[in-house]
Amino acid sequence: MRPSRSDNQPLAPLELRNGKNAGRVSLRFLVMAHSVSELARSLGLSYEGDGNRQVSKVSSWQDADEYSLIFTELEKRREILPALPNAACVIAPEAVPSWNTLISQRPKLDFARAAQILKPRLLGAGMRSASAEISPEARIGEMVDLGPHVSVRAGAQIGNDCILWEGVVVGENCMVGEQCVLHPHVVLYPGVRIGSRVTLHAGAVLGSDGFGYVFDGQSQVKFPQIGGLVIEDDVEIGANTTIDRGSLGVTRIRKGAKIDNLVQIAHNVEIGKHTVVAAQTGISGSSKIGNFCTIAGQVGIVGHITIANKTIIGAQSGVSKSVKEEGTIIQGSPAFDYKQNLRALTVFRKLPELQKEIDELKEKL
Amino acid sequence: MRPSRSDNQPLAPLELRNGKNAGRVSLRFLVMAHSVSELARSLGLSYEGDGNRQVSKVSSWQDADEYSLIFTELEKRREILPALPNAACVIAPEAVPSWNTLISQRPKLDFARAAQILKPRLLGAGMRSASAEISPEARIGEMVDLGPHVSVRAGAQIGNDCILWEGVVVGENCMVGEQCVLHPHVVLYPGVRIGSRVTLHAGAVLGSDGFGYVFDGQSQVKFPQIGGLVIEDDVEIGANTTIDRGSLGVTRIRKGAKIDNLVQIAHNVEIGKHTVVAAQTGISGSSKIGNFCTIAGQVGIVGHITIANKTIIGAQSGVSKSVKEEGTIIQGSPAFDYKQNLRALTVFRKLPELQKEIDELKEKL
Amino acid sequence: MRPSRSDNQPLAPLELRNGKNAGRVSLRFLVMAHSVSELARSLGLSYEGDGNRQVSKVSSWQDADEYSLIFTELEKRREILPALPNAACVIAPEAVPSWNTLISQRPKLDFARAAQILKPRLLGAGMRSASAEISPEARIGEMVDLGPHVSVRAGAQIGNDCILWEGVVVGENCMVGEQCVLHPHVVLYPGVRIGSRVTLHAGAVLGSDGFGYVFDGQSQVKFPQIGGLVIEDDVEIGANTTIDRGSLGVTRIRKGAKIDNLVQIAHNVEIGKHTVVAAQTGISGSSKIGNFCTIAGQVGIVGHITIANKTIIGAQSGVSKSVKEEGTIIQGSPAFDYKQNLRALTVFRKLPELQKEIDELKEKL
Repeated sequence: MRPSRSDNQPLAPLELRNGKNAGRVSLRFLVMAHSVSELARSLGLSYEGDGNRQVSKVSSWQDADEYSLIFTELEKRREILPALPNAACVIAPEAVPSWNTLISQRPKLDFARAAQILKPRLLGAGMRSASAEISPEARIGEMVDLGPHVSVRAGAQIGNDCILWEGVVVGENCMVGEQCVLHPHVVLYPGVRIGSRVTLHAGAVLGSDGFGYVFDGQSQVKFPQIGGLVIEDDVEIGANTTIDRGSLGVTRIRKGAKIDNLVQIAHNVEIGKHTVVAAQTGISGSSKIGNFCTIAGQVGIVGHITIANKTIIGAQSGVSKSVKEEGTIIQGSPAFDYKQNLRALTVFRKLPELQKEIDELKEKL
Repeated sequence: MRPSRSDNQPLAPLELRNGKNAGRVSLRFLVMAHSVSELARSLGLSYEGDGNRQVSKVSSWQDADEYSLIFTELEKRREILPALPNAACVIAPEAVPSWNTLISQRPKLDFARAAQILKPRLLGAGMRSASAEISPEARIGEMVDLGPHVSVRAGAQIGNDCILWEGVVVGENCMVGEQCVLHPHVVLYPGVRIGSRVTLHAGAVLGSDGFGYVFDGQSQVKFPQIGGLVIEDDVEIGANTTIDRGSLGVTRIRKGAKIDNLVQIAHNVEIGKHTVVAAQTGISGSSKIGNFCTIAGQVGIVGHITIANKTIIGAQSGVSKSVKEEGTIIQGSPAFDYKQNLRALTVFRKLPELQKEIDELKEKL
Repeated sequence: MRPSRSDNQPLAPLELRNGKNAGRVSLRFLVMAHSVSELARSLGLSYEGDGNRQVSKVSSWQDADEYSLIFTELEKRREILPALPNAACVIAPEAVPSWNTLISQRPKLDFARAAQILKPRLLGAGMRSASAEISPEARIGEMVDLGPHVSVRAGAQIGNDCILWEGVVVGENCMVGEQCVLHPHVVLYPGVRIGSRVTLHAGAVLGSDGFGYVFDGQSQVKFPQIGGLVIEDDVEIGANTTIDRGSLGVTRIRKGAKIDNLVQIAHNVEIGKHTVVAAQTGISGSSKIGNFCTIAGQVGIVGHITIANKTIIGAQSGVSKSVKEEGTIIQGSPAFDYKQNLRALTVFRKLPELQKEIDELKEKL
């Protein structure tokens, strides 16, 4: 498969290549340069220094070169900022002497926004690998990349500008919106619906059967797992994450939610808008997670509960009952108030001494 | 690949399509209708109402239409049952006025059994994708579907009626029984043996090397991982689950066991008959899990222990020693008696107050 | 694809086949026989008994036959060693009467070393499946096996003797060293660098985007995930494990580290040399794990901490702060000193009684 559309577009105003890879044709290292003043305008920021200086990429401090944009949250790092700039520009909350500075009160956020300007979301270019097996009854949009060994089944629809990398499987009657990126080996079981600008990382499985059985006294009888799975716009889902279809109803990941690697989301779960779920967390059947929640790694959430908006759940917590109040912070297994849990854990470590004290008291009496 | 055998069979007595998808050719929505009286006979139940009423699918209450079978465990839901039926039939413990009712003392179980009658297990139809790469030294049964980009290696055997979806890999000398469904990208390492009517969900890896090394003072020397993996009949294994082969002996999943997504089963483990293992649980090397056990999600079980039949292990538990008595219920990390754990956890939350009380007692003395 | 190079080499001194599979052509069962005296020489051990006896494989006690090498750590198992040998040779700390014995003070280690002599690492044989899609701009070494449905993108390099099994995806500009084995469906995102003699098990995803977002008050803005991933020599990585690329810098797995199945390693993490990480463990962004550490299963490690060399972390631990002293053993969530944790857990179980005692004391006063 040849490089996708961003390659073929005129790359205004300047095309640059990473020094170490100069001369090698690579999508990865094709970037668009912008001047400091253009970036300032796009980001809605002011700047100090040379507005014509070209910036072509974001970098860490360590890896920065003459085309790099870096950022600093000055209160932390001012003292380590070198007097002689080693980057084209820095985003900082105030002008840094001798540097070209984009002035931002939220440097990390504007750095992330700048990164999206310098390296926009990849779009398909209408490339189709000869080894892709596309049903004649599937509907493929314009400028869709269909990589090697892709399979798209009958009744499936793929929106414009999507990229399906190697071995992606799109089951019967799936619907995929526009500008989605499906990394290698993503599997959509039949009937899964995906919004637009969704990114699915390699090996993610969407729409597999939920885990439900009824014991008949001798063996496990499978409860029907025939519901749907809806992934709304702007969702990103991590590598090898699994999301089950509804048993009878629908599993739903709402707009803008971000889900990390190796997460398990069971049948009929709902994840709210812009909620983030870190790696290896598992959410049991029919639980509803609110909007703007932050769920750390390796959390377990039991089935059939509701988590209020803006809840924060600490790592490795086991959530066994609903959270009703917005903005609650919980931790522990089972999870309860974060601060109370911390206090209890502090005493937990001293339990042997506590017991000794009690024994002494008993003796004294 | 064209639709599989169930498509080509005469679909007695009536072929229906889901309203929303009428006119679209889809295996997913082809169903067989049965009359209420036929269902009653097949399930061994009595019924009240119109025995000729056609039922073509199971549904949730919310999604039911005129062809739907629903169920209710009356004690919970009687009050919400609408007076005017919105479904063809309900399974309930007693006749529901104005409804066609299948009378069952275990409505959920009979609903699951009915679902299997209305939508039987898919069977292969002998379709072979041109992109499937099948060794001439493999033996493929009758009516086996071999999907796009499947690979079956020399010496492997695939039983009758199996379906291998996209990208399934069957290693050398594997044996797969009859009527198995291997979802996309399932990988069987060489020599794995699978029984009949086994379902393997997408991305499951079976027969990978166990994790065993001997430290020689400078580096980790791999202990041989050359044993077998046997999956018995009627097992279902979830998406992206990994099951290692034995190091020298055999890893074995016994008849009817059900394993959820993202579960890790290490070398030489045995899982008993009809045991269920929920998502993200990990079982360490050489442990033996009994029959009819229920293991909740995110449980960890150390190596070389034995878990008695009918043991129930609560979510996120860490099981560090054998369970000898049948029917034991344990919870916690490390896990112990479920009720004792609950009581200890109750006090745990009050530890700061407990300490204060002790301090006060000490002062008083 | 035909069998790989080890098949074609002269198999000195003797080629044997597993009895049950005699007559079936199979790489799996082709082995090289060595005499007891040859093995002794190769392993630097002395022996007692028949030095000419042929040994062709390692076995467990239960499965041993006349060609088997077994091992025993006598102090444990002497009593169960049968008087009449059921194997060609045993590795034991002292001569076993009537047996051919390789004398070793570390029988398990030498058994593992012997296994590598009897069945050396598989090497590629230059076989290329017609369905492999290899970019003309990729550089493929000598004697590389490229299995069915493999994809290697432009700018990628694959070293000599590598084996890429079914459906492996090597992204743009990846570099893979010599003698690596990439099991089915392994995915390398663009730019990933792999050393030599690396084994990647099925479904492992390397170089996926890290999980980093900046909340702008309304939605999650993706932080750039454009760094690198370096896997050094002799690393082994388990099935369906996910390792993210650096966000700006590099994620690095150092020489000889061994990582089990379903492990999550976040962006910018470093894993030290010869460290072992058991299944389902998750390591958060930017944490640095030392050399020779042992991390058990289902451990969680927070971001931005440092773990000293030779640290041992018990199963299901949650590590929330740096470990500074070499050789520390910790356990618990949050983790602290292993023995203190054990003592605290012992009291934890008795908390209800403790509370009762305090209540009684209060009454008495």
